[in-house]
Amino acid sequence: MKNTSVLLISCPDRKGLVASVSDFVFKHNGNILHTDEHTDTELGRFLMRVEWDNDGFDLAPQDFAPAFTSIAERFEMQWRVAQRNDRPRMAVFVSKYDHCLADLLYRQQSGELACYIPLIISNHSDCQKLAEFYRIPYVVIPVSKENKHHAEAEQLRLLREHKIDIIVLARYMQVLSTEFIREYPSRIINIHHSFLPAFVGARPYHQAFERGVKLIGATSHYVTEVLDDGPIIEQDVARISHRDALDDLLQKGRDLEKVVLSRGVRWHLENRVLLYGNKTVVFV
Amino acid sequence: MKNTSVLLISCPDRKGLVASVSDFVFKHNGNILHTDEHTDTELGRFLMRVEWDNDGFDLAPQDFAPAFTSIAERFEMQWRVAQRNDRPRMAVFVSKYDHCLADLLYRQQSGELACYIPLIISNHSDCQKLAEFYRIPYVVIPVSKENKHHAEAEQLRLLREHKIDIIVLARYMQVLSTEFIREYPSRIINIHHSFLPAFVGARPYHQAFERGVKLIGATSHYVTEVLDDGPIIEQDVARISHRDALDDLLQKGRDLEKVVLSRGVRWHLENRVLLYGNKTVVFV
Amino acid sequence: MKNTSVLLISCPDRKGLVASVSDFVFKHNGNILHTDEHTDTELGRFLMRVEWDNDGFDLAPQDFAPAFTSIAERFEMQWRVAQRNDRPRMAVFVSKYDHCLADLLYRQQSGELACYIPLIISNHSDCQKLAEFYRIPYVVIPVSKENKHHAEAEQLRLLREHKIDIIVLARYMQVLSTEFIREYPSRIINIHHSFLPAFVGARPYHQAFERGVKLIGATSHYVTEVLDDGPIIEQDVARISHRDALDDLLQKGRDLEKVVLSRGVRWHLENRVLLYGNKTVVFV
Amino acid sequence: MKNTSVLLISCPDRKGLVASVSDFVFKHNGNILHTDEHTDTELGRFLMRVEWDNDGFDLAPQDFAPAFTSIAERFEMQWRVAQRNDRPRMAVFVSKYDHCLADLLYRQQSGELACYIPLIISNHSDCQKLAEFYRIPYVVIPVSKENKHHAEAEQLRLLREHKIDIIVLARYMQVLSTEFIREYPSRIINIHHSFLPAFVGARPYHQAFERGVKLIGATSHYVTEVLDDGPIIEQDVARISHRDALDDLLQKGRDLEKVVLSRGVRWHLENRVLLYGNKTVVFV
Repeated sequence: MKNTSVLLISCPDRKGLVASVSDFVFKHNGNILHTDEHTDTELGRFLMRVEWDNDGFDLAPQDFAPAFTSIAERFEMQWRVAQRNDRPRMAVFVSKYDHCLADLLYRQQSGELACYIPLIISNHSDCQKLAEFYRIPYVVIPVSKENKHHAEAEQLRLLREHKIDIIVLARYMQVLSTEFIREYPSRIINIHHSFLPAFVGARPYHQAFERGVKLIGATSHYVTEVLDDGPIIEQDVARISHRDALDDLLQKGRDLEKVVLSRGVRWHLENRVLLYGNKTVVFV
Repeated sequence: MKNTSVLLISCPDRKGLVASVSDFVFKHNGNILHTDEHTDTELGRFLMRVEWDNDGFDLAPQDFAPAFTSIAERFEMQWRVAQRNDRPRMAVFVSKYDHCLADLLYRQQSGELACYIPLIISNHSDCQKLAEFYRIPYVVIPVSKENKHHAEAEQLRLLREHKIDIIVLARYMQVLSTEFIREYPSRIINIHHSFLPAFVGARPYHQAFERGVKLIGATSHYVTEVLDDGPIIEQDVARISHRDALDDLLQKGRDLEKVVLSRGVRWHLENRVLLYGNKTVVFV
Repeated sequence: MKNTSVLLISCPDRKGLVASVSDFVFKHNGNILHTDEHTDTELGRFLMRVEWDNDGFDLAPQDFAPAFTSIAERFEMQWRVAQRNDRPRMAVFVSKYDHCLADLLYRQQSGELACYIPLIISNHSDCQKLAEFYRIPYVVIPVSKENKHHAEAEQLRLLREHKIDIIVLARYMQVLSTEFIREYPSRIINIHHSFLPAFVGARPYHQAFERGVKLIGATSHYVTEVLDDGPIIEQDVARISHRDALDDLLQKGRDLEKVVLSRGVRWHLENRVLLYGNKTVVFV
Repeated sequence: MKNTSVLLISCPDRKGLVASVSDFVFKHNGNILHTDEHTDTELGRFLMRVEWDNDGFDLAPQDFAPAFTSIAERFEMQWRVAQRNDRPRMAVFVSKYDHCLADLLYRQQSGELACYIPLIISNHSDCQKLAEFYRIPYVVIPVSKENKHHAEAEQLRLLREHKIDIIVLARYMQVLSTEFIREYPSRIINIHHSFLPAFVGARPYHQAFERGVKLIGATSHYVTEVLDDGPIIEQDVARISHRDALDDLLQKGRDLEKVVLSRGVRWHLENRVLLYGNKTVVFV
């Protein structure tokens, strides 16, 4: 993998944006590999992702911000820059179903997900063995109505201790409190096992079976304070028929969930996802 | 196309059903080409479709019912038999958008849809030329809040006059009254331009755009008294991204609608759709 | 549709390309709506598409070339600029099957394909009526082994007379001569009814049926002197099973062909396709 | 999972087949859950799969054959009966890439694949750890041009020792000899990493990249003596674009391979695959 930098920008739309940014990279001797932009004409919002080869680029990471400030201020940019070689620290939350966790761990180990996974948190012990195979600390924190506040406090303590950057809910069957979510805004990714906004809430495959749909879906999205309503990162569907009993739906669903969650996580890790309003733009 | 018969059965599940039906066809010298069954174990309901070659079959269509009665009564069957060569009489309702109508007419003329289309009804004159090209009577009946009752009365009169068997709403933008729907139970097929049950009601593409979904869908379904809630026949989806403006969604949607509606109509015409509860079983 | 300009560039990869081009557009007061680039690192080739709003842009179309020359020469660019509002003149070649022709004509008339269609050429009279409905001249030029040379001469004469920019072979069942193809390099688009490079040549659905594949495909591509070997623009597939007889394959295939050909044609018309080597880059 | 029996039949097409078989099951008090048939009219071949609930069925497995013989002989049937609860013994062959192996082992352990896996054979030691996690014997047998004959003899000895019923080549990078294949006719399943018959042989992703296709594929098939030419069980594809470098193709391909191989293996294990000529019929 090349040593590259990624710059993400969100600002009011204005002439000269692409020129100013690409000129800045060029003047510092960077070779642009990709640029992507999106303009939301209704909101007058401009979003951009630029990736350049660090080879020859004359700004060290710590010198980027001071150099870029004048452009950023002129265009009122929200922005951040990341090194492709940076590896964020990701915690996985899981309950009993292990298919998404197993898939994430396999992909991380094989190099497909560029992150560290220093911590797995669960309200059950079922996935302990799997964590051991990959030599990742697995902490069981039971959650009940009564102890929820304390359980979340302990979870937050562990997340801070392990300097976690991003949390993935890999079929974690507990609803997080508003307070918890606010600690990691736009940094918690969930997999919902339906094609949102259809079948919000519990037991979506049962709902789908009941309604008689011909396709089932899965959705990976950022967690916000409203259940199953956060910005969608990725969705996919699979065809079903009357030959599929509820168990077959669950099985086909598991394959969907793995793929849809891992894509969402990978795009987040590669700094390809930009948020605006309650939507995402994914630059792939 | 072969000269075949299709028998559709719905009854309580019991042993000996497949044997009794296939034995009946065999004893009358019919060669079974396809059998399909589905058992809903929860409801204890058995559904079956049998198709046989009429070549050598020793019962004329009018003699089938008397011969089959004893089996039908023994198993408490709801059933009907159809000849593959029968061509139902189909009316198409349309408003201003012509893509679904154009698609249906092309497919009917090319032999893909085995039906007659003796009548097109619209609340606008926009699609008149298209109807003329295919030499099909096109009747404009404007609909407003005030005249709705009279308009539907006139529509029903025309449907009876033309001995219509099935009605297809090809992006017809008026909601039919309960009274109208009751005249053609399970015989009105609609195309809804979303992946139901997501985005029920008006302007689903706008709703989808607003929510930031990554796939858009279309659904063909039987019309019941509850809006967009009838038994689903077919659904499909297409991938979208931030590069798709609302206009692009509408365009991709049109391609989806054509395919999803024509499949639903074809399966109905070929006697492949069985209803139970609020679901369909499609034997393809 | 907005009044925009599209600039397409192909040149050796070098630093400063994005900056120079976007700076040029900015200095002439154009607001960039989209930029896309692709670098083939193996070949060291850089490809770019830039689209900007003409509103406020201070270069008239005829003044663009002189102004852009110095940049173009410095980077050794092959380039062309087009106005989104330009409508190329497209000829359609067809034989007996009319589904692709019908689809193209419908899409052109509905505004989805931004082109004129002043001429349809066929070796049969079957599609005459369809052409009349859309009021497009339809010229029948029978083709046989013996008269092929003369037939192509007449075709070329008509193409020149109608100032044709691009030719679409909509299931035209004759192989064009090398001489003919050289007259319209990279400007003839064909639909092949298989997933190339599988099933090159005649009767691909029969070949697919024989081989027992589980998906059938269609491919739109530029025509080169080697049969079915030109640069691929678009491909898609549909699932089949043993329940699909050869006739069902043909029917499913027709739906694929329409979609795959019309996408290929649309992307070409919107100046989204760049060629290099025997491949295409499609900026969508 | 229910305790059911599956009967698979292949014979010349004749009237009375469905009636005779379903009557046989009924007379022995079996409740038929599914029947599927396919008639190849060109070859005059009839294929059937019947599954019934063993609850109440009055023939023990060992008594089935004597009771069924007269029907089987009358219709010249090739047939076999299997118990859904039977679990075949499956060996997996693997080289260095572990994604398909990891996927199969996970699915077997989670209950999705109804088989035992008593043996993994590899020409490399790379996947040893994975086998240990699942506590499955892993035997390394290096293969070279010189020792190939001896290596295969050792492989065959192990397969016999472990009473192997079916072999899965999970990205095993050696070509098996004709002699080896003949020992397990129609019982070796391979995953080929292309949409066959496109890109036969080595390095299909490189071939696909070179040709500039817009979709990549994977194919699971039975191994025959002609390389990559055996009966296809399942295929699927994924969309790619110029944004996908060769590495991205490989990654997308891995996800395809896992899904396509595991589906093929599952259908084989569930006795859903019938062979005729060089094709399969998959009753799902």
